[in-house]
Amino acid sequence: MSVVANESLAEILIAGEWRNSSSNESFPSFNPATGERLGQLFPVSSWSDCEKILDAASDAAERLRAAPAQDIAAFLEEYAKLIDARAEQLSQVAAAETALPFKPRLCDVELPRTTSQLRQAAAAARSGSWSHPVIDVKANIRSCYQPIGPVCVFGPNNFPFAFGSASGGDFAAAIASGNPVIAKANTSHPETTRQLTGLAFEALSSSNLPNATVQLIYRLSHENGARLVSDHRVGATGYTGSRRAGLTLKAAADQAGKPIYLELSSVNPVAILPAALEERFDEIVGEFVTSALMGTGQFCTNPGIILLVESPTTKKFVEIIAGKFQAAPAGTLLSTGVQKSLADAIRTLAGAGAKLVTGGQAISGRCSVANTLLTVSATEFLDAPGVFQTEAFGNASLIVIGKDIEELASVIRSLEGNLTGCIYSARSGADDVAYDQLASFLEYRVGRILNDKMPTGVAVSPAMNHGGPFPATGHPGFTAVGIPASLLRFGKLTCFDGVRQHRLPPVLRDRNPTGATWRLIDGNWSTQDIGV
Amino acid sequence: MSVVANESLAEILIAGEWRNSSSNESFPSFNPATGERLGQLFPVSSWSDCEKILDAASDAAERLRAAPAQDIAAFLEEYAKLIDARAEQLSQVAAAETALPFKPRLCDVELPRTTSQLRQAAAAARSGSWSHPVIDVKANIRSCYQPIGPVCVFGPNNFPFAFGSASGGDFAAAIASGNPVIAKANTSHPETTRQLTGLAFEALSSSNLPNATVQLIYRLSHENGARLVSDHRVGATGYTGSRRAGLTLKAAADQAGKPIYLELSSVNPVAILPAALEERFDEIVGEFVTSALMGTGQFCTNPGIILLVESPTTKKFVEIIAGKFQAAPAGTLLSTGVQKSLADAIRTLAGAGAKLVTGGQAISGRCSVANTLLTVSATEFLDAPGVFQTEAFGNASLIVIGKDIEELASVIRSLEGNLTGCIYSARSGADDVAYDQLASFLEYRVGRILNDKMPTGVAVSPAMNHGGPFPATGHPGFTAVGIPASLLRFGKLTCFDGVRQHRLPPVLRDRNPTGATWRLIDGNWSTQDIGV
Repeated sequence: MSVVANESLAEILIAGEWRNSSSNESFPSFNPATGERLGQLFPVSSWSDCEKILDAASDAAERLRAAPAQDIAAFLEEYAKLIDARAEQLSQVAAAETALPFKPRLCDVELPRTTSQLRQAAAAARSGSWSHPVIDVKANIRSCYQPIGPVCVFGPNNFPFAFGSASGGDFAAAIASGNPVIAKANTSHPETTRQLTGLAFEALSSSNLPNATVQLIYRLSHENGARLVSDHRVGATGYTGSRRAGLTLKAAADQAGKPIYLELSSVNPVAILPAALEERFDEIVGEFVTSALMGTGQFCTNPGIILLVESPTTKKFVEIIAGKFQAAPAGTLLSTGVQKSLADAIRTLAGAGAKLVTGGQAISGRCSVANTLLTVSATEFLDAPGVFQTEAFGNASLIVIGKDIEELASVIRSLEGNLTGCIYSARSGADDVAYDQLASFLEYRVGRILNDKMPTGVAVSPAMNHGGPFPATGHPGFTAVGIPASLLRFGKLTCFDGVRQHRLPPVLRDRNPTGATWRLIDGNWSTQDIGV
Repeated sequence: MSVVANESLAEILIAGEWRNSSSNESFPSFNPATGERLGQLFPVSSWSDCEKILDAASDAAERLRAAPAQDIAAFLEEYAKLIDARAEQLSQVAAAETALPFKPRLCDVELPRTTSQLRQAAAAARSGSWSHPVIDVKANIRSCYQPIGPVCVFGPNNFPFAFGSASGGDFAAAIASGNPVIAKANTSHPETTRQLTGLAFEALSSSNLPNATVQLIYRLSHENGARLVSDHRVGATGYTGSRRAGLTLKAAADQAGKPIYLELSSVNPVAILPAALEERFDEIVGEFVTSALMGTGQFCTNPGIILLVESPTTKKFVEIIAGKFQAAPAGTLLSTGVQKSLADAIRTLAGAGAKLVTGGQAISGRCSVANTLLTVSATEFLDAPGVFQTEAFGNASLIVIGKDIEELASVIRSLEGNLTGCIYSARSGADDVAYDQLASFLEYRVGRILNDKMPTGVAVSPAMNHGGPFPATGHPGFTAVGIPASLLRFGKLTCFDGVRQHRLPPVLRDRNPTGATWRLIDGNWSTQDIGV
């Protein structure tokens, strides 16, 4: 869409100023619930915007490398405060752009989670323990993670705050580890991202940090996106979104040797073992329906594939779930793009031989697809495991029914990498043998294994792993959620070998800089000074 | 070269057996000092060898995931013992294949370093602390690194033991973290690798580990190499070697989403600040000459670029170094391939305008190049920084002379990623301002920064980083040397969310499995049990 002269075009935040983009193209924001266009247009940035942003980010990165951790922490905390103060307004804007419920979802759940993440990131920056200081006293060799350089953040459509490009987990981790952020808004909620970035910039203005610590653009051509993530001035990229766009960026970044952390797609298998289903039928039905339809199924950890062993109880489970899916209202999806992808994925699954038990059709006149349940036998699944792992992002799940546990084990062994894998087993212990037949195969293929619960809760815990083998993410050693571990993605390991004491980063000096920073000194973790 | 019927062809180690390769091609091993062919021929494996190896590695990986840490440790220790017992024989074989000195280099330095690494890796496996257990007690969320899957190891030509495919740092790290190894020998020392693998297999036979924990092939076509590292059965790859071959493997592995850890090329800049040169002229001359010519310059951390400020002392430094380079005998290079690459690199540097102060020519009839010193002004360097960073792997160094510190800072800012960066500064403090002008730019571009020493020593210290930004390696967050940190490359982060106690890996259970495993419990590192 080209820019119409008398329509207002949003400014981009670049080198410490809100400026007009050097762009010849623009796009609007839509309300998916009504289909109506919202407010102003947003520019598609040209490469000339990117050049200015990259130069400013390089300068900011150099200055941030010397910034005291407390200045970084103070900025994150001030930003969190400003977001909390505008919770209602931001949630209204986000609700209009995403159709996610204003309350409780956006205002009472996702927004507080977001500011909590920013505050946890601030605490991590202040403590310095995230940087994993390791000290060999006798050899005077010392190492820790140092800032990796400017971080590009491409946030997803489904969490406008908590994974937002200028407010979410990647943003918080990149800043807390000492790097400037180049935020590329998700095009399904550009106004939400613009308003959040405005608050970040306000917090920045009263901080001691460089004013290009946060920059914002709204959209790029695929070609310029690839050029951005592979630019020599970039340190790393965090991307959460579709597999196709993510793989394009990955190819470019990989070729340039630039780390890119991707969260792509995941079908999150859930195995419900026979005795568990007998023991807690109603409880499991309730948990599955809630988890599957939560946020209209638009969670990265949505339970997309359910593994069950053939039995009369399994048959009843499918029937009851189908009834509940029919009875529940179909939520509004995040965009017509999501609606189309979901309908396409369901067609792909059905076309491959899955039986459509309920749903399947897009709802005319609404950005919705009927709650959808499909089933397939494990035998058929194993004939075409690739197709049956097609991610149906949204309110659709595929139940895979095996003749026995061995067949389910084969299904699990055919799975690609996933964020999560769940196993429900009987409290009585009656499923313990079956559990052992599945667990090690499932663990190896997922980032997080759960017992007796659905995967949709992703606690912001230091022990969380929101990651997993490809194609769930680009590298199975990193987590996108959980502080301080998520900061490691944006750290560069640096060793100081025989470096004089006063030239060391504070976390590596003999004196513990906070009195509480955890350091691995001669093989022992300690918060002590050295030489006392 | 095709197989001649009556020549003996080495067997490959595959699925727990020494077998004939299904190969139609072979290659010999050469003594670079004499040019003579050594003993038997070695097969170039076909893809059918790889298929069998990958299946066997998958099975071994499944069994290793359940193996007790002490069994892994016992295997590594037994293997180290067998190597130590054959130190002289192995060093003789390696000396013949590499022209590296039998003593002290191979027998008294590299071999003990290798067995020390294996024993440190065994200790790391036994302790479990490497796996970084993180426990959130209240939420019952627990995570740690688990084995990533079969690891392909492509070792380099320059350290037949300490970085050897079936004996070196990548091997030790992959096994200690619970993964089987598919070793691809370096083709410049296949017999050394075969004999080491024989000892590994002997140690394996008396262990409780699967007999396909170690497998060996000698050579692959580029196409099959790419296919191997991107195969779905592979967990990760460790590669040390030439940039071109490494980037081919990287492209294939990246596309498949398989982690590949590369050590490619590095020119290891050394800045000698003016007052340091005045203060310790002779000492620095001695350290530089030793470091530059050590192992005929064939160290990954060889000082390839020296940065100096123009002065009469600098002029004298160049003259004296040139004299010492002329006076020192030119060592034998690892292969005629290395000789050709080195001569080519010197021609490239001279062709771009560097002045050849001494050396430059290949020595006829020997696998040698005269000790080579080149100089270039910083101004010229900055006109073509890419060309002047051409790695001259071997006994050649380039001295870059700047008008002032600012110009050296510009040179440093033009550098690609390197393993190391050194700054010599005066003890008097007279260089402290200059140091600060260079250090942050240098730190950002290297994996290890050193003060007042040359980069060639790589201590096996827990605080070591033998890594750095691309193209020194493929990811700036990982080290290839230093235990336990090097094990993290072969770990997959796995979170156990609400998993019942008896199903957890031992390091995540309430009871500390060794009484000494370090775990991050609710934000504090501890060796305690939980709930006591």
